[in-house]
Amino acid sequence: MEKAGLLLRASIISIGNELLSGDTIDTNAAYLSKQLQLLSIPRVSGYTVSDDILEVVKALKSASDEADVIIVVGGLGPTDDDITREAISEFCNCKLVLNEEILKKIKGFFDLRGGKMPPTNEKQTYLPEGAQALPNRIGTAPGIKIEFEKTLIYAVPGVPSEAQDMFEASIKPDLERLEGRKPVSVRYLSCFGMSESQIAHLLSGRMERGRNPLVNITASGGVKTLCINSVADTREKADENAEEEQKNIAEILGNVVFSKEKETLAQATAKKLKQFHKTIAVAESCTGGLIGKLLTDIPGSSDYFKGGIIAYNNESKIEMLNVPLELINKYGAVSKEIAEAMAKGALKNFDTDCAISTTGIAGPTGATPDKSIGLVYICVVWDDKDYVERCNFPPDRETVRYLAANYALNLLRLKLLI
Amino acid sequence: MEKAGLLLRASIISIGNELLSGDTIDTNAAYLSKQLQLLSIPRVSGYTVSDDILEVVKALKSASDEADVIIVVGGLGPTDDDITREAISEFCNCKLVLNEEILKKIKGFFDLRGGKMPPTNEKQTYLPEGAQALPNRIGTAPGIKIEFEKTLIYAVPGVPSEAQDMFEASIKPDLERLEGRKPVSVRYLSCFGMSESQIAHLLSGRMERGRNPLVNITASGGVKTLCINSVADTREKADENAEEEQKNIAEILGNVVFSKEKETLAQATAKKLKQFHKTIAVAESCTGGLIGKLLTDIPGSSDYFKGGIIAYNNESKIEMLNVPLELINKYGAVSKEIAEAMAKGALKNFDTDCAISTTGIAGPTGATPDKSIGLVYICVVWDDKDYVERCNFPPDRETVRYLAANYALNLLRLKLLI
Repeated sequence: MEKAGLLLRASIISIGNELLSGDTIDTNAAYLSKQLQLLSIPRVSGYTVSDDILEVVKALKSASDEADVIIVVGGLGPTDDDITREAISEFCNCKLVLNEEILKKIKGFFDLRGGKMPPTNEKQTYLPEGAQALPNRIGTAPGIKIEFEKTLIYAVPGVPSEAQDMFEASIKPDLERLEGRKPVSVRYLSCFGMSESQIAHLLSGRMERGRNPLVNITASGGVKTLCINSVADTREKADENAEEEQKNIAEILGNVVFSKEKETLAQATAKKLKQFHKTIAVAESCTGGLIGKLLTDIPGSSDYFKGGIIAYNNESKIEMLNVPLELINKYGAVSKEIAEAMAKGALKNFDTDCAISTTGIAGPTGATPDKSIGLVYICVVWDDKDYVERCNFPPDRETVRYLAANYALNLLRLKLLI
Repeated sequence: MEKAGLLLRASIISIGNELLSGDTIDTNAAYLSKQLQLLSIPRVSGYTVSDDILEVVKALKSASDEADVIIVVGGLGPTDDDITREAISEFCNCKLVLNEEILKKIKGFFDLRGGKMPPTNEKQTYLPEGAQALPNRIGTAPGIKIEFEKTLIYAVPGVPSEAQDMFEASIKPDLERLEGRKPVSVRYLSCFGMSESQIAHLLSGRMERGRNPLVNITASGGVKTLCINSVADTREKADENAEEEQKNIAEILGNVVFSKEKETLAQATAKKLKQFHKTIAVAESCTGGLIGKLLTDIPGSSDYFKGGIIAYNNESKIEMLNVPLELINKYGAVSKEIAEAMAKGALKNFDTDCAISTTGIAGPTGATPDKSIGLVYICVVWDDKDYVERCNFPPDRETVRYLAANYALNLLRLKLLI
């Protein structure tokens, strides 16, 4: 990707063998990307490299072809494997020089803790010539800022709290002063009940690459999140275009859209329950407590969630949810009738306005000739009515359980809309 | 980094604007890196690129200079922004050709769900010429395997469950057959109840970098997993060294170690329940179904898990768990006495051999002058005895809930050992 004239672009270089080995998940890159997007300096590339000077130099070369702003994360510590200072000075063709101010600060850091500066920390007092130190308010490692051939290079420590604090305190105000930033607005649509390809089909042209606004889809647990990115000359125009696109897509997709924010189905359903001052209970068989867990993930859920029964065997369905034994004998535990009886039992026992239930076969065992893995009956009881649906989910235990939980929450949401 | 003659090296290319924007954290790269390390094919670099053919081709070029094995993650879906197929065929100088077998499979996938294959999914039936399709047992997108100029290129979907399943089922067995790998043996120790720094302190020299066997710690939900990596000239020697180290460390850490495998506390506790032919029920207040969820994540959990009550308010504790109202009035719902009464209520109502309960303040609201956020009472009832513990967890809702759930499972595990 060529550097664009008008729009500023960013790249992130993450350094560390612990990232390459998978022992550490790179959360810094995600955090910094989000921050850069809010500053209208979208990230266009990312590199993960080992604690090796030549590797970092190679990544700096490649990133400087693509981006105007590069943030290097990690490798600023005091040990032998910390090589970011060396790599930046190599890339910028300059030497490392002692910085008296940093020396004083690091000595002060150890003084305050009643110790002497260990010799290993001396390393941290050197900076590439012409670079500026970024203060570290949490640890000892100072950050680095240097400009080289029109590319602005920042280096921050790999410890997430230090990286975030340094970005907030030093880099963000710096970037906000840069010219050439075009306002970017981001809006979301959270959807359930339609496949990625169906959504893409309905939206067709709107998802084309290079389009502005640009629309992306991500999927998790059956939830599809659409992210609408709009770039314009002014903040107002960017907002307006993003919201216009959001509105148009929401109209096309109809009630598949459960939120105009990026949120979970439990959050969206919980909002509806709160809005209508309704309480809920759950009766879970194959989901085994997952729906309760998802609803109580939300702070303040005791306002609407009263509780539930995890009825994992027949006896608990009979004893705790008053499901008639004859019904189980007649239809089997995985049936429309049992789902209905379970939801009604929860509604009654917890004295709530609505209840949801699940009964199904999550696998890998438990399938019968006429009931295969992935078959789940889901029931919502609400306002003296009940709605049961028969679902066939892909036969993977985790998938079945998450899809069933979200399907149940979505069914309730749809019924609450009526 | 030059390709090495003897040791195989890997690179990962993660594709997706949602990664660059920070909307999604790249957990696939960490998972795959760990798996590659276990196969003695260490990852030497990583690229994060946008949904843009030229960008992916550029990353493929760079990665093929460094690595013998490249895994491309994402961009295999049915929409316009899915460009991995195109990028690989561009990089390998070959065209995309229709694969009849894939077409049949995808049509079958939709048939099973009673729908027709949407036209957008047609895209997924094309593969670079000479490539092999890797079956997807969860979704529609098949993976890709192709060899180009001595570099082995795999492409897997970005959905984590699909990426992992495809790696396990198709890529891992494939890579295990490659020559040039030195035998690596990996052993695990799963621990609970000791901090990372306490463990590091007890193990001191054993955790030094560059050591063989190499010991790493990762932490999640209070569980610390020690990974012991041993490299040797023969498989037998590598196994022997890893097992020797595992044995020594297990002795040092004592009953903090809950498993000699990499498993969850729910899995380890479930094994004990099965071993002793005991059944369990749960009574959850602040964990809201999470313990039930964790226990039923495990296939075959109906052998020992009968069910539970999510008692999120006082009424449900009274009605569904027979907790005396006077007890709540006297001690408050978050108390030793209520935890005990809840566990006993679950034991009785579900007629099980043991039961666990939680009652606490997950926050952010609900604290009182003498009961702060993070306070949780946990009770295990077992063999006519009950054990209650008062815990103070860090005051973050998610942390409180996961630590409480795992603490409860661990308490049961420890009592089952007696």
